[in-house]
Amino acid sequence: MKLWDKGMKTDEKIDRFTVGNDRELDLFLAAYDVKASMAHCKMLHAIGLLSNEENNALLSELDSIGKTVEKGEFTIEESFEDMHSKIEFLLIDRLGDTGKKIHTARSRNDQVLVAIQLYVKDELTELRQQVTELFDLLLRLADKHSNVLLPGYTHLQVAMPSSFGLWFSAYAESLIDDMILINAASDIADQNPLGSAAGYGSSFPIDRAMTTEELGFKSLKYNVVAAQMGRGKVERVTATALASVGATLAKMAMDICLYMSQNFDFISFPDELTTGSSIMPHKKNPDVFELIRGKCNVIQALPNELSMMLTNLPSGYHRDLQVTKNSLIPAFQELKACLDMTTFSLRKIKVRENILDDPKYNLLFTVDAMNELVQKGVPFRDAYRQIGNEVEGGNFKSRKNARHTHLGSIGNLCLDEIRQKMKNYSE
Amino acid sequence: MKLWDKGMKTDEKIDRFTVGNDRELDLFLAAYDVKASMAHCKMLHAIGLLSNEENNALLSELDSIGKTVEKGEFTIEESFEDMHSKIEFLLIDRLGDTGKKIHTARSRNDQVLVAIQLYVKDELTELRQQVTELFDLLLRLADKHSNVLLPGYTHLQVAMPSSFGLWFSAYAESLIDDMILINAASDIADQNPLGSAAGYGSSFPIDRAMTTEELGFKSLKYNVVAAQMGRGKVERVTATALASVGATLAKMAMDICLYMSQNFDFISFPDELTTGSSIMPHKKNPDVFELIRGKCNVIQALPNELSMMLTNLPSGYHRDLQVTKNSLIPAFQELKACLDMTTFSLRKIKVRENILDDPKYNLLFTVDAMNELVQKGVPFRDAYRQIGNEVEGGNFKSRKNARHTHLGSIGNLCLDEIRQKMKNYSE
Amino acid sequence: MKLWDKGMKTDEKIDRFTVGNDRELDLFLAAYDVKASMAHCKMLHAIGLLSNEENNALLSELDSIGKTVEKGEFTIEESFEDMHSKIEFLLIDRLGDTGKKIHTARSRNDQVLVAIQLYVKDELTELRQQVTELFDLLLRLADKHSNVLLPGYTHLQVAMPSSFGLWFSAYAESLIDDMILINAASDIADQNPLGSAAGYGSSFPIDRAMTTEELGFKSLKYNVVAAQMGRGKVERVTATALASVGATLAKMAMDICLYMSQNFDFISFPDELTTGSSIMPHKKNPDVFELIRGKCNVIQALPNELSMMLTNLPSGYHRDLQVTKNSLIPAFQELKACLDMTTFSLRKIKVRENILDDPKYNLLFTVDAMNELVQKGVPFRDAYRQIGNEVEGGNFKSRKNARHTHLGSIGNLCLDEIRQKMKNYSE
Amino acid sequence: MKLWDKGMKTDEKIDRFTVGNDRELDLFLAAYDVKASMAHCKMLHAIGLLSNEENNALLSELDSIGKTVEKGEFTIEESFEDMHSKIEFLLIDRLGDTGKKIHTARSRNDQVLVAIQLYVKDELTELRQQVTELFDLLLRLADKHSNVLLPGYTHLQVAMPSSFGLWFSAYAESLIDDMILINAASDIADQNPLGSAAGYGSSFPIDRAMTTEELGFKSLKYNVVAAQMGRGKVERVTATALASVGATLAKMAMDICLYMSQNFDFISFPDELTTGSSIMPHKKNPDVFELIRGKCNVIQALPNELSMMLTNLPSGYHRDLQVTKNSLIPAFQELKACLDMTTFSLRKIKVRENILDDPKYNLLFTVDAMNELVQKGVPFRDAYRQIGNEVEGGNFKSRKNARHTHLGSIGNLCLDEIRQKMKNYSE
Repeated sequence: MKLWDKGMKTDEKIDRFTVGNDRELDLFLAAYDVKASMAHCKMLHAIGLLSNEENNALLSELDSIGKTVEKGEFTIEESFEDMHSKIEFLLIDRLGDTGKKIHTARSRNDQVLVAIQLYVKDELTELRQQVTELFDLLLRLADKHSNVLLPGYTHLQVAMPSSFGLWFSAYAESLIDDMILINAASDIADQNPLGSAAGYGSSFPIDRAMTTEELGFKSLKYNVVAAQMGRGKVERVTATALASVGATLAKMAMDICLYMSQNFDFISFPDELTTGSSIMPHKKNPDVFELIRGKCNVIQALPNELSMMLTNLPSGYHRDLQVTKNSLIPAFQELKACLDMTTFSLRKIKVRENILDDPKYNLLFTVDAMNELVQKGVPFRDAYRQIGNEVEGGNFKSRKNARHTHLGSIGNLCLDEIRQKMKNYSE
Repeated sequence: MKLWDKGMKTDEKIDRFTVGNDRELDLFLAAYDVKASMAHCKMLHAIGLLSNEENNALLSELDSIGKTVEKGEFTIEESFEDMHSKIEFLLIDRLGDTGKKIHTARSRNDQVLVAIQLYVKDELTELRQQVTELFDLLLRLADKHSNVLLPGYTHLQVAMPSSFGLWFSAYAESLIDDMILINAASDIADQNPLGSAAGYGSSFPIDRAMTTEELGFKSLKYNVVAAQMGRGKVERVTATALASVGATLAKMAMDICLYMSQNFDFISFPDELTTGSSIMPHKKNPDVFELIRGKCNVIQALPNELSMMLTNLPSGYHRDLQVTKNSLIPAFQELKACLDMTTFSLRKIKVRENILDDPKYNLLFTVDAMNELVQKGVPFRDAYRQIGNEVEGGNFKSRKNARHTHLGSIGNLCLDEIRQKMKNYSE
Repeated sequence: MKLWDKGMKTDEKIDRFTVGNDRELDLFLAAYDVKASMAHCKMLHAIGLLSNEENNALLSELDSIGKTVEKGEFTIEESFEDMHSKIEFLLIDRLGDTGKKIHTARSRNDQVLVAIQLYVKDELTELRQQVTELFDLLLRLADKHSNVLLPGYTHLQVAMPSSFGLWFSAYAESLIDDMILINAASDIADQNPLGSAAGYGSSFPIDRAMTTEELGFKSLKYNVVAAQMGRGKVERVTATALASVGATLAKMAMDICLYMSQNFDFISFPDELTTGSSIMPHKKNPDVFELIRGKCNVIQALPNELSMMLTNLPSGYHRDLQVTKNSLIPAFQELKACLDMTTFSLRKIKVRENILDDPKYNLLFTVDAMNELVQKGVPFRDAYRQIGNEVEGGNFKSRKNARHTHLGSIGNLCLDEIRQKMKNYSE
Repeated sequence: MKLWDKGMKTDEKIDRFTVGNDRELDLFLAAYDVKASMAHCKMLHAIGLLSNEENNALLSELDSIGKTVEKGEFTIEESFEDMHSKIEFLLIDRLGDTGKKIHTARSRNDQVLVAIQLYVKDELTELRQQVTELFDLLLRLADKHSNVLLPGYTHLQVAMPSSFGLWFSAYAESLIDDMILINAASDIADQNPLGSAAGYGSSFPIDRAMTTEELGFKSLKYNVVAAQMGRGKVERVTATALASVGATLAKMAMDICLYMSQNFDFISFPDELTTGSSIMPHKKNPDVFELIRGKCNVIQALPNELSMMLTNLPSGYHRDLQVTKNSLIPAFQELKACLDMTTFSLRKIKVRENILDDPKYNLLFTVDAMNELVQKGVPFRDAYRQIGNEVEGGNFKSRKNARHTHLGSIGNLCLDEIRQKMKNYSE
């Protein structure tokens, strides 16, 4: 976070204001800027704008900068406003005039565009892995606790029998929807913008098909104005995918906080995952899940934040777009942390058995009992009357044993089918 | 819009409050409720819960109700709270006890879930057609005006040469991104929730694979709790796709409003698409595009509105979910209207030629001129100095002729490639 | 709600698109347009632009239109695009050339500005009354149930003793904050924009101080460009006040839904305020409160919707601003309905006594017990150890009797002080 | 910004996740925690829970910590999770058992509540000063350039004469509305929450009236549950005030970016406030204003972000509330920086004279010309026809001299009246 100080000099002030967090955020992007610069370099060589020597020298230096980045040793000092200027400085410092040639036929606009899109693709790949890991865990938990019954609620009122099997795997299957959005965001980011220069292309005969292949993009954002319009749009769509994962995590966190309350008491976690009170031994505060919920709600607000910045801006680059980095990059880190903590914590969840022994759940099975009579041939109205009388007279005896057999029900969770569906979207 | 009146009786008041707009909105959904009821009916017959006669009678009456809906003659009177109760009333009224059997093994929860998802799929299909139509028009316009140059702006400052060819086809290619999101939303809606009943399944041995096939769903939302969680989530994801199309239309509308200003004067529209002033003949107010922009901005706020309703709700049905209908259904109608008006209006757009004759655009070509010298072998620094001197001395003579040849540039719009990319996502 | 039809003619299409919901929404504004027209008329007379006869004739006809509006008999036919054109039509139809003079020195821009601001002021006054009514009820309920204890939760974990007295009056005191925002919105709306014409004033020597007084505005929005900028801003700020009331109602509704759950079972409502199930007698679904929560959450999203429309628009009128009517006017109706239903329902709330008899609430009083020992002179560490041992040994006996005496605590609710604070803001 | 690292140990991971940015953010709050602790200390002494010696020792150490904070030397090491624990550690380290007594009758909940509310009050005071400074500058600029005419636009179409006098002072008067919201937020924050402890008060006979006076709060948030509900609500309402200032700055920034475009060319700034291009001398990119716009749009999205976190949470503390610090504190810093840069830059604005000499603005005065004839006694219809004919025949000769005299018009800016109105709200 870049905070505003008092008593700065004018130039410092303007510099601080315009640079913002760029130096810190660019550390997340530098590897991609190096990678894209190498592809650009090879392409300039291929179309004759760089000699063999120049090309080799530039590639070698870029490779060396890339290694510094990989080792976490790359720095952007206060004298540079961003990674682009630092990297170009290093090339010129080491290679002289040859260093300057790297910027031929490109602009900082398409340089940052391509770096962000490569970054987004990589982060989404990592997200996909984390989502899959959580998905797998949820299915394992569903399998393990498939027979432990839970009350199912509608309107927060005790309604029908449910189970931990259903509850865990519901969130797993819901993650498939989020994966579909991740894929959509990834597809949209997977179109090479390099070569759009300042948003209107270049008069050099650059070979954009070559950089597309070199950088591993699935396709090319052909139109250079459209490529420029991708700035902000890629971020917004990506934020949408993040928000969708966030919504799923936040909802599960809400369930968990509720289920940990003494008024539900369905689940618990070991001490390191809760905070207690020295004097109140009953307190097991679900801080981790409350923070997951809070942070994921911030992520849910992110697409709107980006839309607020982008809307009503005419086409063409505006410096406002720089601010979008500050919205997206920390959100990726936060969401990954939330996923990590969710998976980490759920591995240690303890579910309570025999929850339905509590008499307040007795009437969960009235519908099942009635359906059973109907299936045995008792006319619906008679079945309804019989159960109704039992309930009213206090004689309704619930077997508390849900015999649901259809696809996706308590007795038939279809975990394999759900696993297969996820595979269709994650491979 | 349902507005609140004074002086109502208690019951009326509660009824009006709880029913809200449902009667009006359900007219958009009734056809899907009928369709899903027919599939449910066939399934009940297949598993032996309906006799042949009952099945035929129900299907025949449902078919007849469906025809009423199609003709626009279906009504939901004040005595019914929604389409579900009206349709069930009609079945019972006509078929007696047989009519009552339609509700076996389902709940209003999965009934509305399946109707909304079928509705969303159909609306998205229509949207896809409208987007494709606009896309085709934009490519035709790009082709037609491919040689008419425009100034390209960065920071709203005159920067580099652009063209109407680039401008029109940029919005076309940008629509492909929106199509990817429409497809994602459609995939998420395309999972059958029927059979989840109140969100916890049924003790009847229902055949959910059969209704999935019968209703043409691509797959099944297996887990019944996950199916119930789809309520609200399908709407939110769909809103995201709508918002993305809306953002594209709004941005183009902003460009159009700007380009119609006397200070740009790049394009114009015939009188029926603008509003004038009796005394100020220069006024050609772009009301249609301002309204497209405003309405699309409301649609851009929609995903957030839905998230605000859904967030922090624990799992299980809550009546809040009813309110989501009021967010989504009108948004579909508004966005379709905006798309329709955009396409309708763009068919009549007139572009001004020779825009670059104005001397304020003279310096658009300095970069091209310099690049040209570089390509002819003049060292970069000399080229830079030469053009710089010409500019400073007022001697820079711009050829105003952009020779951009690379993929996606002014001289090589790649309209066929863009068309092909869209095909990959729209077929 | 205005929905988009198929198969319309071109003109109809454009008309429908541009008019939108205006005819319906303007019925809420017509009385204010009449009122402002009368003030404008008197002012034109005062500066000599209307003769005595003209002035009298116009005032008389406007008064008669105003009465029609009051009786609910004013209509805006399809041939008129809004109230302004209908009212002007009526004046011209009845008074000929004199009717036309009403539009001297004004524009539709300031006409709608002034009507909306007068409307907002009146609606906020009504809102203030409804909030005060709910506030009073909450204080009465707090007083009535001041001794009924409740568990207080932190992190949804049983924590410390609370009471219905505290709970009801907490929402009352929280409404004071909302009242402060209502007042702020009202102050902002209470600046006369009439005379700003199209946003740049008029060359007629109009007397804006006179219309300000005539219309009862607290002050004048002097600068005509600032007055025009108020369009949208007044709506956004007002939406902020509505959202704040909505947030309070939604939070209380969430508490109520939770407290009605069998897992809490703190409160209940008579049958007409809940929906049940024929077979599950335990179900008392809190539909009314779920709908209040859902609708208030939509209202919470409203300021953002308005910001999304307004942001990045340069100064001066844009037709987008028309769309804001569709955001604000229904929100007023919905919020008033939610306030009405909340007050109506809370009048019938039943609170359960002896909630703390349940052993799961036993440890609520550990902190109080320890504090008591400390106050009796037992050193903190000893007190802590003593209570800790009792809890661990299962011997802790809670008196379940909170002796909190400080300002605003269970035993000293300060209802009069809270009432007085509200008076400072609502009179 | 706190970013998520790989390869951390479990405990570190949980710590990092739960602590988040608190250590950095708390540096903004520490002075207020010290101040509130001193007031709490005095009150404990007054009610006999601290001896004279204890009170003096604690006050002396707190004073010394406060001085460290003031000098910017206070640090929160990794071993402390927040300022509260660091400050308490220091007291215990230096004073032993006496140090521990500071936490009697309070909880971290009301400790952070009171610190945040004191912080908010101070930041809003600073904001009020910055807004007033900008307001004063805008009025001075309006006065200085009161006679320089500008075209006024509606629908982005050239419409009516405006002036720099009107334009500058419009934003000044608009800031008064924002000041009203700042005041409302300040009033809401100005209610002492100290003594609410964990949200349910304390069994100690604490004197909340005394701490209210000691801390300079205007009033007391009596109800302890209401005080706790203020967490998040104070932040949301404050964010609303920030967003309103942000909206005004962003709108002015949009105007400025537009007016700096070659297509308008109404204003300019010295080089240090724009970025240029080595080869394109015409480029004067308004980066500072684009960043103000972008950053202010992020601030406009803030109230929604907070609502998203808060909505649907039942009453009582939840750890989610910690995350709100991360939304609010940086927003204050960003907005203050934006205000600072706006004022700093506007001091150097250059306005172009004779803008209306351009023939594209010729028709700005048709309405004025017609009004003039009307005022001379020419019947409206004849005046209309005469001017219409002149325009059509190309003979309309505009005097380009706006004689607007009414309150708030070009010729009568009412700067003193606007200044007086602001005084009513800022003193």
